[in-house]
Amino acid sequence: MVIELTRLREQIDAIDSEMVGLLKRRLQVTAEIGEVKSRHGLPIYAPDREAALLADRRQEARRQGVPPDLVEDVLRRAMRESYSSQQTGGFRKLNPSLGPVVIIGGNGQLGSLFGKFFSLSGYQVRVLERDDWARASEILEGVGMVLVSVPISTTDAVIRRLGGLPRECLLADLTSIKAAPLEAMLAVHKGPVLGLHPMFGPDVANLAKQVVLYCDGRGEAAYAWLLAQLQVWGVRLHRVGAREHDGAMALIQTLRHFTSFAYGMHLAEENPDLAELLALSSPIYRLELAMVGRLFAQDPRLYADIIMASADNLKMVKRFYVRLGQAMALLEHGDKQAFIDVFKRVATWFGEYAPRFLKESGELLQRAHDSRDDEKAT
Amino acid sequence: MVIELTRLREQIDAIDSEMVGLLKRRLQVTAEIGEVKSRHGLPIYAPDREAALLADRRQEARRQGVPPDLVEDVLRRAMRESYSSQQTGGFRKLNPSLGPVVIIGGNGQLGSLFGKFFSLSGYQVRVLERDDWARASEILEGVGMVLVSVPISTTDAVIRRLGGLPRECLLADLTSIKAAPLEAMLAVHKGPVLGLHPMFGPDVANLAKQVVLYCDGRGEAAYAWLLAQLQVWGVRLHRVGAREHDGAMALIQTLRHFTSFAYGMHLAEENPDLAELLALSSPIYRLELAMVGRLFAQDPRLYADIIMASADNLKMVKRFYVRLGQAMALLEHGDKQAFIDVFKRVATWFGEYAPRFLKESGELLQRAHDSRDDEKAT
Repeated sequence: MVIELTRLREQIDAIDSEMVGLLKRRLQVTAEIGEVKSRHGLPIYAPDREAALLADRRQEARRQGVPPDLVEDVLRRAMRESYSSQQTGGFRKLNPSLGPVVIIGGNGQLGSLFGKFFSLSGYQVRVLERDDWARASEILEGVGMVLVSVPISTTDAVIRRLGGLPRECLLADLTSIKAAPLEAMLAVHKGPVLGLHPMFGPDVANLAKQVVLYCDGRGEAAYAWLLAQLQVWGVRLHRVGAREHDGAMALIQTLRHFTSFAYGMHLAEENPDLAELLALSSPIYRLELAMVGRLFAQDPRLYADIIMASADNLKMVKRFYVRLGQAMALLEHGDKQAFIDVFKRVATWFGEYAPRFLKESGELLQRAHDSRDDEKAT
Repeated sequence: MVIELTRLREQIDAIDSEMVGLLKRRLQVTAEIGEVKSRHGLPIYAPDREAALLADRRQEARRQGVPPDLVEDVLRRAMRESYSSQQTGGFRKLNPSLGPVVIIGGNGQLGSLFGKFFSLSGYQVRVLERDDWARASEILEGVGMVLVSVPISTTDAVIRRLGGLPRECLLADLTSIKAAPLEAMLAVHKGPVLGLHPMFGPDVANLAKQVVLYCDGRGEAAYAWLLAQLQVWGVRLHRVGAREHDGAMALIQTLRHFTSFAYGMHLAEENPDLAELLALSSPIYRLELAMVGRLFAQDPRLYADIIMASADNLKMVKRFYVRLGQAMALLEHGDKQAFIDVFKRVATWFGEYAPRFLKESGELLQRAHDSRDDEKAT
């Protein structure tokens, strides 16, 4: 039996070695593709080509009796690696005559990420930090675009200092709220204005498929090049109104952060043995704990700023608190049927999204489960 | 340029075709391994072999200049597929002389999953459903093991009906609380008793690496075969005290379900456009929405039962409600520094787990991001 198993395992090892070689060749070819794209200013993320490639390989998998999902997952993972390697060759500069790009807060994490991509595309990038205002006129000399990347709490004050920009300069910001900064930018600057909200943290490996929301300020024709440039970097753009944006963010960003914060407070007060909790957790509970815990590895100031960004946020949190109290009353009365009725009403509201979310998160949890091994489980 | 790109893309397609072939061969060999293991009653999940295989391939990847994480992710995904295919050949029966296994609630989702695995291992499986109690003595004739797999709210009543089991029969349950059912089983049955809590839903593709918590009831020697059998199916066992188990579950299960329930209520009342929310969501917010929405695709009765399982649960929820109120007070007073102080205190409590969770969830979100395409994003 041992001999039989050893022989089979040697075969697996040989196959896996071939796999390493194949992945190596794939990365070499995609690096070449990246060079060609960069030379011609083509976006590194090509959704149509990606979809066609996957459809072809899925069909081939079916013909050969290999699970198509296995093939798709493997190829998607390989493609992610390609996107990372494709960026290092640089990108085409879509606005060759643009003056320097000045990033206010350009030494911050997000500011420097954008600085890197502007540099990789051949733009001259200058940084204006807190202590640089004395020589601001020097830094802003001949500026083609100003990008504001500072904490929410100082955004307004920073924008007010930008009264003297050249008329044709593009003024844009990366703040995670949009209505107030956009208003401030439009008030202080008469030229083109654009509000951006990158929906990713500074820790992303590359910008392929990352979402950037944008709110029109003024002068669409004058910032069209920037939107195109973001797409060359692989970004997916989504246009949204500033008020609509802020309402949605209060729900999907502020409230999530706030409940994670309260949950973390609660855990710390209850003070369970975290290692034992994890040992007892299925992938879904482990993930939920991780989604709470990850907050506390980050900058408290950033989250204080996001959560306290507006009075509307507080009102939203209050409404949530009331509803949590109502949900708790159902438990207090031990009213199972009332709980089930509310549950069904919410399920109806989610509609076809509920089963879709179940499927989608199930697939993701399965992937989390793939990596479960003894080392990580303890 | 088009010709150049087409030529390179043809190379990619050829490499990807080879990959499909390689995955096919890999699955064929692992199927053979599964047969050998099944014949000899070896567990399908072999952590040491898996770790050694990955370490070897990572090293080879490094030598060849291929990112080791890429190779590991691809191999882990392929291994998951192998576990699924390895189960279909059946498993060795570790307790050949055992009488029939009677699963109470064996037509339910979880009950039938366990029934399938007992059958695949050659045990005779009988089902006792709600309407079968009249002919219970017939079904229980010569029984070797009774497995209780019914809703929490009826577990106690069901167990009380099991007074007349043969002394040597093993009595076990799958309830997601453990103290009360275990007590009830010990009271009603004088033979071996074991409490099990499978930490997975009935939708898992296979049992490889799935966690089952177990609480000793009585007669460890008489149920050792069952623990070994679970391991043959690929299960990872974790022993825990019943009270300790219930305390941990109140935190990691009840409270999460409850807050998701309240969050869903809140969303339905706020009534935003869900499609637009998703379009504006980064992978992390999409995942958080999905983790809430997935609840409402499931059985309300199951969650009512879990959340209302004990008075301790209600007390826990109340403490959480109080803490959420305290967190809200920080916002109401606009006291950013107090918020930051609490944040830091909680971060200290999480300790090294906070950065670890950030990393772990970051990797998972990256995988969620791999699958992001236009179809799924809308």
